[in-house]
Amino acid sequence: MSADIKPFDEIRLLFARLPGPDAQSVAAVRARDAQLTKPPGALGRLEDIIEWLAAWQGVAEPAVARPLVAVYAANHGVVAQGVSAFPASVTAQMVENFRTGGAAINQICKAHDIGLKVYELALERPTKDFTQAPAMDEREAAATFAYGFEAIEGGIDLLAPGEMGIGNTTSAAAIYAALYGGPAARWTGRGTGVDDVGLARKNAAIDAALALHGPYLSDPLEILRRLGGREIAAMMGAITAARLNHVPVVLDGYVVCAAAALLHALTPDAVAHCVGGHVSAEGAHGDVLARLGKKPLLDLGMRLGEGSGAALAISLIRTALACHRDMATFESAGVSGKAR
Amino acid sequence: MSADIKPFDEIRLLFARLPGPDAQSVAAVRARDAQLTKPPGALGRLEDIIEWLAAWQGVAEPAVARPLVAVYAANHGVVAQGVSAFPASVTAQMVENFRTGGAAINQICKAHDIGLKVYELALERPTKDFTQAPAMDEREAAATFAYGFEAIEGGIDLLAPGEMGIGNTTSAAAIYAALYGGPAARWTGRGTGVDDVGLARKNAAIDAALALHGPYLSDPLEILRRLGGREIAAMMGAITAARLNHVPVVLDGYVVCAAAALLHALTPDAVAHCVGGHVSAEGAHGDVLARLGKKPLLDLGMRLGEGSGAALAISLIRTALACHRDMATFESAGVSGKAR
Repeated sequence: MSADIKPFDEIRLLFARLPGPDAQSVAAVRARDAQLTKPPGALGRLEDIIEWLAAWQGVAEPAVARPLVAVYAANHGVVAQGVSAFPASVTAQMVENFRTGGAAINQICKAHDIGLKVYELALERPTKDFTQAPAMDEREAAATFAYGFEAIEGGIDLLAPGEMGIGNTTSAAAIYAALYGGPAARWTGRGTGVDDVGLARKNAAIDAALALHGPYLSDPLEILRRLGGREIAAMMGAITAARLNHVPVVLDGYVVCAAAALLHALTPDAVAHCVGGHVSAEGAHGDVLARLGKKPLLDLGMRLGEGSGAALAISLIRTALACHRDMATFESAGVSGKAR
Repeated sequence: MSADIKPFDEIRLLFARLPGPDAQSVAAVRARDAQLTKPPGALGRLEDIIEWLAAWQGVAEPAVARPLVAVYAANHGVVAQGVSAFPASVTAQMVENFRTGGAAINQICKAHDIGLKVYELALERPTKDFTQAPAMDEREAAATFAYGFEAIEGGIDLLAPGEMGIGNTTSAAAIYAALYGGPAARWTGRGTGVDDVGLARKNAAIDAALALHGPYLSDPLEILRRLGGREIAAMMGAITAARLNHVPVVLDGYVVCAAAALLHALTPDAVAHCVGGHVSAEGAHGDVLARLGKKPLLDLGMRLGEGSGAALAISLIRTALACHRDMATFESAGVSGKAR
């Protein structure tokens, strides 16, 4: 790799050739919907979802036969600043819990027959504390972005990136403050449950980082490497790979949307294939979703991460598909249409 | 039955002996929740749901093994006023569609292994046009209320009443206007999709009924028989029977909540065992839910009836149960607790 072709430039090139939505497939599912035994529009967002699936899968008969929750786990140097209610060792312990089937995301995926893969991102080697230095160098950030492409291998048809990483709501909040303007307190929440003192440390760490990295934060990829974490880089890659392979994406909560927000800042079209799975109780997630133009499907006061809110949304999407695919038509059921 | 013991008085007696919530079971599920491998509160309303189930099933290990969507179908004399976009014949046609598995509620129940029963309420004999006379006499209203008790037979553990009845959003809107104050336009929506002219007829019919029955509308059971329909009477009975038998209830949308609102007006405690399944796009359903003190689990712009929104909520409730029941504890998974 020569000094002239920097890793981030290779990433930027990807966004020049993103496939668009398939209007013909959308028209086909609309035509079928109009024949189903229900008043037009009566299934609300369950109807919108089918159009969205058709648009981005690019087929008139969309399917969710092989959905995947891809959970990325990473550790964060900024934990040294006392920003989390849990010790950093919990990241690896939770990865083991995912492996043995004990976490919330395991139960949700099992209940709804959703695939689950866990990607461990060098947990023994946290990113640098971003109050002191950039979290990653460009080569590492770009390589981790590329690693995210593995999520779509195996032929999935719907992707929900998820994450686990003690300290990663601090990283996400720093990214939001850098993208949308500070101070930190406008974006932060209590994460896994920090008390008032911990929250003050979290805000102080982010504000210090904004001051340190300020001159370099006009570029979303610089924000990623300076304030992000490996799970955020990998999720950006996964979301991009999904787009390039006609796989729609369900966005989970506060941390996942930091990856989406960075892509959106690179080019708004980069997240056009994403639907908002849920709105988190964490920080200003609702505000972030609004900036991304995403109306969440679910609002259940959740703030767990792991892809848990998105996994619930996948179940809803599948139910919408069952209605669209299997309902009788007015003609087949002998039901009269509108009288006037 | 003597003239002194009127049918409605027998109904009123039921509300003197409603079982209350089980605080001990709630404490038990809270204690288990605190041990699960997640930050406290991180599953939001999924945690609240378990407490609600424990409270009203009255057991420390709540279960949803035999949930039922009970769909009540009825016809309404007020359809003669041109209030609906569909002809009255559609009610019976949709009942046949339920029987042959072609409706939206069939697909939702099938996708999530939820029981479905359809109760047909003398479709060939609509209630009287309430712009001209009371829809039902006291004996019929009370008998239909009692018929609703059948829903809990067969040993169900969660109930979602649903409905189908051309014209029944007009009946529900009339009930809301009678309970909470008019005019009709404050409560009505487009139902199955009436145009502006149809909506004006709908409002006029309700306002005429309010004028005709005005002097008798201080009693919720009089509102039921004068402005209600058979499905609303039966759902009131089903909700009450559920309470008496420790079966929690998931409320569906605009028409189901007319039954709940009448019970709530008789005594607010009568719907304490009910959770708001979803908020409908129809009329002022959100306002009704707020008056009932119910925050809906889902907000998907649906306005179909059939119990469809509640059935989706049942799937969510079951997922919450899977998490509560099957997640690892901090101790079993070897995950560290909060650092501070």
